[in-house]
Amino acid sequence: LIKLGVFDSGLGGLTVYRALRKSIPYANILYLGDTARVPYGTKSAATVTRYALEIVHYLIDREVEAIVVACNTASAFAMECLRKTCKVPVFGVVEPGAKAAVKATRNGVVGVVGTRGTVFSGAYQRAIKELSSSVEVFTEPCPLFVPLVEEGWFDEEITYEVAYRYLGPLIAKKVDTLVLGCTHYPLLKDVISRVMGGDVVLIDSADETSFEVKDYLECGGRLKDQELGGDQFEVTDSPSRFADVGRIFLDRNLEEVFQVNVTEGEEVDGSDL
Amino acid sequence: LIKLGVFDSGLGGLTVYRALRKSIPYANILYLGDTARVPYGTKSAATVTRYALEIVHYLIDREVEAIVVACNTASAFAMECLRKTCKVPVFGVVEPGAKAAVKATRNGVVGVVGTRGTVFSGAYQRAIKELSSSVEVFTEPCPLFVPLVEEGWFDEEITYEVAYRYLGPLIAKKVDTLVLGCTHYPLLKDVISRVMGGDVVLIDSADETSFEVKDYLECGGRLKDQELGGDQFEVTDSPSRFADVGRIFLDRNLEEVFQVNVTEGEEVDGSDL
Repeated sequence: LIKLGVFDSGLGGLTVYRALRKSIPYANILYLGDTARVPYGTKSAATVTRYALEIVHYLIDREVEAIVVACNTASAFAMECLRKTCKVPVFGVVEPGAKAAVKATRNGVVGVVGTRGTVFSGAYQRAIKELSSSVEVFTEPCPLFVPLVEEGWFDEEITYEVAYRYLGPLIAKKVDTLVLGCTHYPLLKDVISRVMGGDVVLIDSADETSFEVKDYLECGGRLKDQELGGDQFEVTDSPSRFADVGRIFLDRNLEEVFQVNVTEGEEVDGSDL
Repeated sequence: LIKLGVFDSGLGGLTVYRALRKSIPYANILYLGDTARVPYGTKSAATVTRYALEIVHYLIDREVEAIVVACNTASAFAMECLRKTCKVPVFGVVEPGAKAAVKATRNGVVGVVGTRGTVFSGAYQRAIKELSSSVEVFTEPCPLFVPLVEEGWFDEEITYEVAYRYLGPLIAKKVDTLVLGCTHYPLLKDVISRVMGGDVVLIDSADETSFEVKDYLECGGRLKDQELGGDQFEVTDSPSRFADVGRIFLDRNLEEVFQVNVTEGEEVDGSDL
């Protein structure tokens, strides 16, 4: 069985894990949540890149054969650097999301929501423009969405009001496709869809990314096993809260979650990359 | 001039800095915001204690003569450990807040709001009970308050609704005194006061802590200088966002903010403390 490494700043990447598990049942998946340093979305490019480098080195030491960066902020800031330094293929969530958005839009006006880091990095904007320079892109950072998800306030008046506030400017721009550029946001799909209107297509990068990883592995002839793969969940802070909140993402209990140290090796210097 | 070290997980401790600067104008203050690992409020006791130990070692290397832990979560989890390992006096925000609450309550029913970490640590509950075993304490974690402050949504319908939701149970318990057990919350004083009702006394640990530090320094005869002290602001992530959001806390621009590394020394092991 192939061994995939999947990482996120914390829990959000479990939406990507879930999509991968569904499209690629015959892989072992090692999921690493950097809960001791979560969130990445408010931090600088340099700091997020340093953290991502530490984690991919850790995952490579654990002998993964491909890595999925299941975090929009890390994908937005660090992909180039990670690809340069890694000897295994690295997949991010930004490119697949951008591709799906360009395919889905009918009027050529796409919205992107995400953390401050993701939005201000310009990564989605660049990826979409590269695919189709005629598509217009409008963005909004939505910093309250993550804590609303983690409170479990999915069907609350407050959540609708916050969503109206953030999404209003995108509705005004008449976007017909909205990229959910943060792994927590698919959990607010119902709220976001009601606020945006049923005609607006919501792009969940998790699904798109899992298809891309699957295509790659199939091309390489790596998906012949019929045996189902196993999971290992690891975090950098105490496992208890991860297991608790993980339930919101997976609809099941995470029984075994292990705490690990990803900074034990040599210090990683990403400054000259 | 005495040199004080003040630290917080990020920006929130600037409310404590501001109170210290007001009560103790004749001290040099070195403020350290651990913005590369912010927030502490969702992390475990062990991780927060490890971070706090790294920072106090850093501050002691910078020759501070006393340390103020301007972060409720770090004060709640790590005070005992910090006091055991530090050769300089260490002040937290929990004890002064608890003392002020016990003094202020008329009906003996006190509420405490803070991060999950602060509330579930039980530190305020213990500190209040130690001062007066007859005082009843009720607590509520309010995870959305910090992002609301950082959005600058101070006088918004949404903020009132979130406040009603969190504070409703405390109103039902008829608390007459409410400890703002997170350094961001004083910025929501107007909202919280309107929701709780004007009779409820709000305790801002920042003021109380600065009085305690001042008393200590005056007892030691250390406050004779008439010269005004200077400030140094340091952060562990890129300074730009700190300087931006810092404006919300200080009503002025932070012109010079330096990025530093607090983990450069030997790794700190707090496990056997």
